[in-house]
Amino acid sequence: MRILTIDTSTALGSVALIEKGEVKGQFDLNLPLTHNQRLIRSLKCLLEFTAVAVKEIDLFAVIKGPGSFTGLRIGVATAKGLAYSLKKPLIGINGLDALAHNFLHTPYLICPMLDARKKQVFTAFYQDSNGKIRRISDYKSISPEILLKSIRRKTIFAGTGVDIYKSLILSKLKERAIFPPLPLHRIHPEVIGTLALEALEKKEEADPITLVPFYIRPSDAELS
Amino acid sequence: MRILTIDTSTALGSVALIEKGEVKGQFDLNLPLTHNQRLIRSLKCLLEFTAVAVKEIDLFAVIKGPGSFTGLRIGVATAKGLAYSLKKPLIGINGLDALAHNFLHTPYLICPMLDARKKQVFTAFYQDSNGKIRRISDYKSISPEILLKSIRRKTIFAGTGVDIYKSLILSKLKERAIFPPLPLHRIHPEVIGTLALEALEKKEEADPITLVPFYIRPSDAELS
Repeated sequence: MRILTIDTSTALGSVALIEKGEVKGQFDLNLPLTHNQRLIRSLKCLLEFTAVAVKEIDLFAVIKGPGSFTGLRIGVATAKGLAYSLKKPLIGINGLDALAHNFLHTPYLICPMLDARKKQVFTAFYQDSNGKIRRISDYKSISPEILLKSIRRKTIFAGTGVDIYKSLILSKLKERAIFPPLPLHRIHPEVIGTLALEALEKKEEADPITLVPFYIRPSDAELS
Repeated sequence: MRILTIDTSTALGSVALIEKGEVKGQFDLNLPLTHNQRLIRSLKCLLEFTAVAVKEIDLFAVIKGPGSFTGLRIGVATAKGLAYSLKKPLIGINGLDALAHNFLHTPYLICPMLDARKKQVFTAFYQDSNGKIRRISDYKSISPEILLKSIRRKTIFAGTGVDIYKSLILSKLKERAIFPPLPLHRIHPEVIGTLALEALEKKEEADPITLVPFYIRPSDAELS
């Protein structure tokens, strides 16, 4: 099973080819707001290097949100175009779910946190239960101050929001806040691939015509 | 400061461009034994995407070993060629040191472990001391059975050797063995960049003429 993963939800976008749960090739680019120009080009480059034809891909998996509005629109649109034209299944994965899966087997509360601008973060709470990560709250767009007031347990914070609000988190939670190593603040293509396979087995395929990004809150354009 | 990092020590090779401690672009390819054909091509591709000219790179950092003999020769030779021709500093980083730095601030013994074939692993012990990772043993090429006999403490195992010897480690150490999430079993370009900057500040530059891979044990070619 060859899975192509696409993540344009944060400034550090990635395309990757996953085979048997392993990264065969991965391309990460941190060039905000230019996803559109480079997504298909980096995909082309990746497939050339791995000597795989685009029609040999069995499954397309895309981070559908939350995150950068522009980034998500481009990533989701590209994945839909590929899956539709090649008649291959498409899975949309929530980026907070993917981040939480960096922490399998941890005893602590897991709080992925993506910068949502306007002094808010996109977040949800998760916990591991016998090697399965379960979401135990709604997805939220919330001010970090209000979020932190609701936390009583030792909690792992990961994602692009943590860098921005680290001193606030520390001042409110002190030794209850856990900050994992840098690589665990990123969404990893292996994780996207694993979650997409699980979703495919549960027949949770997205419709390549109707899949839309998951913004949590409406975009400024929609509000105005 | 723009740092180009090269790692061809394991099957999953990478080239990356690091600016201000952040990944600007990263290309990972898992195509064993073909590093030679693709290293300069992926470097070219990476620089095109990031719109950086090779002469704008300020520092070259390469994983010098231990690991795949063929891979290391190609990675080190390429980095030397680039640094020499562009008259820029070159730093060789030990891959076990880089892996250990995935575990800053952990209270446990840290044991990076790379597959060395011939039923051996490349390894060393490390521990964190106030946010500084210190190596507390020699670098070794050793049978995992002998290595495990010397371990009394709770220990984190990370690297390509762990996958191969996981059941052995578990059977010998039981609850003293800690296996971190998948992304922490890889060498990360941000870490290579950080260690290279520290080495540059300590004036530990390598000589682009004489730098050789660090094999720990002689290669089969040298033995025969």
